[in-house]
Amino acid sequence: MTALDQKFAALAADNAPGQEVRQDMSGLDAVMKGGLFNGTPVDFSHGDVDAHPPTPGSAEAWQAGFEVGGQQAYTEYRGAAAIREKVAARLAEFTGHPLSADSELIITPGTQGALFLALGATVTNGTKVAVVEPDYFANRKLVVFFGGEVVPVALTYGGQGSDNGPDLAQLEAAFKSGTEVLVFSTPNNPTGVVYSAQDIAAIARLASSYGVTVIVDQLYSRLLYTGESYTHLRADPQAPGNLITIMGPSKTESLSGFRLGVAFGTAALIERMERLQAIVSLRAAGYNQAALETWLNEPEGWMDARIAAHQAIRDELVSLFRAAGIEVAVPQAGSYVFPKLPDLSVSPEVFVQLLRRQAAVTVTPGSEFAPGTRDSIRLNFSQDHEAAVAAVKRIIEMIERYKA
Amino acid sequence: MTALDQKFAALAADNAPGQEVRQDMSGLDAVMKGGLFNGTPVDFSHGDVDAHPPTPGSAEAWQAGFEVGGQQAYTEYRGAAAIREKVAARLAEFTGHPLSADSELIITPGTQGALFLALGATVTNGTKVAVVEPDYFANRKLVVFFGGEVVPVALTYGGQGSDNGPDLAQLEAAFKSGTEVLVFSTPNNPTGVVYSAQDIAAIARLASSYGVTVIVDQLYSRLLYTGESYTHLRADPQAPGNLITIMGPSKTESLSGFRLGVAFGTAALIERMERLQAIVSLRAAGYNQAALETWLNEPEGWMDARIAAHQAIRDELVSLFRAAGIEVAVPQAGSYVFPKLPDLSVSPEVFVQLLRRQAAVTVTPGSEFAPGTRDSIRLNFSQDHEAAVAAVKRIIEMIERYKA
Repeated sequence: MTALDQKFAALAADNAPGQEVRQDMSGLDAVMKGGLFNGTPVDFSHGDVDAHPPTPGSAEAWQAGFEVGGQQAYTEYRGAAAIREKVAARLAEFTGHPLSADSELIITPGTQGALFLALGATVTNGTKVAVVEPDYFANRKLVVFFGGEVVPVALTYGGQGSDNGPDLAQLEAAFKSGTEVLVFSTPNNPTGVVYSAQDIAAIARLASSYGVTVIVDQLYSRLLYTGESYTHLRADPQAPGNLITIMGPSKTESLSGFRLGVAFGTAALIERMERLQAIVSLRAAGYNQAALETWLNEPEGWMDARIAAHQAIRDELVSLFRAAGIEVAVPQAGSYVFPKLPDLSVSPEVFVQLLRRQAAVTVTPGSEFAPGTRDSIRLNFSQDHEAAVAAVKRIIEMIERYKA
Repeated sequence: MTALDQKFAALAADNAPGQEVRQDMSGLDAVMKGGLFNGTPVDFSHGDVDAHPPTPGSAEAWQAGFEVGGQQAYTEYRGAAAIREKVAARLAEFTGHPLSADSELIITPGTQGALFLALGATVTNGTKVAVVEPDYFANRKLVVFFGGEVVPVALTYGGQGSDNGPDLAQLEAAFKSGTEVLVFSTPNNPTGVVYSAQDIAAIARLASSYGVTVIVDQLYSRLLYTGESYTHLRADPQAPGNLITIMGPSKTESLSGFRLGVAFGTAALIERMERLQAIVSLRAAGYNQAALETWLNEPEGWMDARIAAHQAIRDELVSLFRAAGIEVAVPQAGSYVFPKLPDLSVSPEVFVQLLRRQAAVTVTPGSEFAPGTRDSIRLNFSQDHEAAVAAVKRIIEMIERYKA
């Protein structure tokens, strides 16, 4: 195996959301118990933008961008200045901290693009990077791709209130032993844990005192459920000197088909990210950038309705899992649930394939998010409410069928 | 300077097309001779999609993709299967060699995205990569970013017919001494040289016999002028076993604002590229992929008219430069000219800034394409014909004004 073979073996993407169609499912029949279920297929690997459609006006904004022509097609690599001005002002208000549109913001092809650029700008051969477990699966892959070393930090997510959060002792130990970068998501993907004000303050203090660069993925921070509160690291008085915050309209706002994200924070890092973007993909598609006109600028009441719709789905799915005796944490924000499977007669990976084959339900295996969460499955419940409920009932029946 | 500082110093993008707006131009007044010119500003750093508008139907195809909804938003990372089927068939016909839509094609965010993925899939720490000089500026930057080593191969472009082309002796010497990858563009960017059938055959033979992976950027291969012929490396009977061809609709077809490109060739490399795309930006924007419906599928006569319009501009600009005694090769394809500046009283970099300040003309300095072409400037002449002619007249007057 060459160095490149190894590098790309670590990037295996067959279980990544949306890629399941490329799996070889022959051989599954030998272990199958019982027949197929009837019911609407549900793909919980990503949100359903037909059930929760894109922000009103987004397609019209695209069309307006197209009609602007060349100026909109060929923006600066960091994105069109006029759009950055508007978005920066709204992000400053949302996060409670000022933001320079000129030097502290870059528009990227999706939040995935933002994460790639942020880690590319801060990780090279030998860089130690603290990665929370479980967390978004690409974080670890990106660190390895850039030649860095993953230093795991455990996240508690099954507990009540302040029990949840990162292991701060592990985090400080990592920082003490030469970790230069911390990357994490809050709300956490896949568990829906929102880092508490205390945890965010502690991260700010520790990162500042050890000189650690922090990349915080706040993709789901707008989809916050009743009674929850959210703390923005960048607004902390002790926020670290090197800090990148990542957001985007792909999830809550259902603009995933536009591939738009933003990264904002330390100017020197944004400058590096733009240099990298220049060789990666030049810029987020010019006409698509125009759709950011609608972002953080939705019609009155639109976001409340979207949150309410998701909260109702969340509550019903969590009740169903719990009534069946399946452990699941209640997500505080976002649209992921991460139930834990009981012992089964097949491996979790095979069970996930059987779910798709027998029950027309696609979920993402927990092994994508941390080595230690192999026995969990992630569901993005941004789906048609009724279809999601029916699909979770099928998952529960499948669990009963395959229980060890 | 840290390892990351060095890595990003090598990615300086201030002179990259479209980024000139971020330059510090203070201090220019001290060397300025004479006043400002009147005239329509012309940005030769990229094509003018207002003068040469996007393929008919492209915006409508986007709208149709948006209306398809979730299925179009969340395609496989390598792109929507139905679109790949159509594009693969058209590319097979265009290049004269079969192509599997399932395993040999990936849709990317622009051809820049395709180049990034192709080099990322083939270059790691220590990989020796043959890079033609001059050639597209990102090629060298990408090799360095991935930790590879650039092995330069000279291109002759000022000569007549078969004088032009890569130095095959240098190429073989590079292959003999451990070079594992060759990347080049034909038509060459910035000179417009089309590699001859003989040169393509020689590259095929050499790459096959030394086991070298080849990445060939054919972005401009459709904009071929009267009397010229084009040879596709992938159709050569001795084409190398590891070969990626890159194309896209950003230039000739003016779909740059959609950020769409394709890479096609060896299935194992396409598979790697998809794994990399999964952590870089997931996929080309889903709705945008729908615009590929129009690609290689334009209305009858549309491409002929586009070629004729560009050929007329090319002929007039070349005549103007030559009448002023300025050396310039006639591009055989594409929309770049690469005239050589005479000795000036200011450096070529400062002259390029003065052109923008005094003459409202933006060009790309030759140093972006090779260390040895500092005294040339690149013009993308896909512009309004009259405005381009007037702007070149201003360039010529500026050259007179600053002649050493």
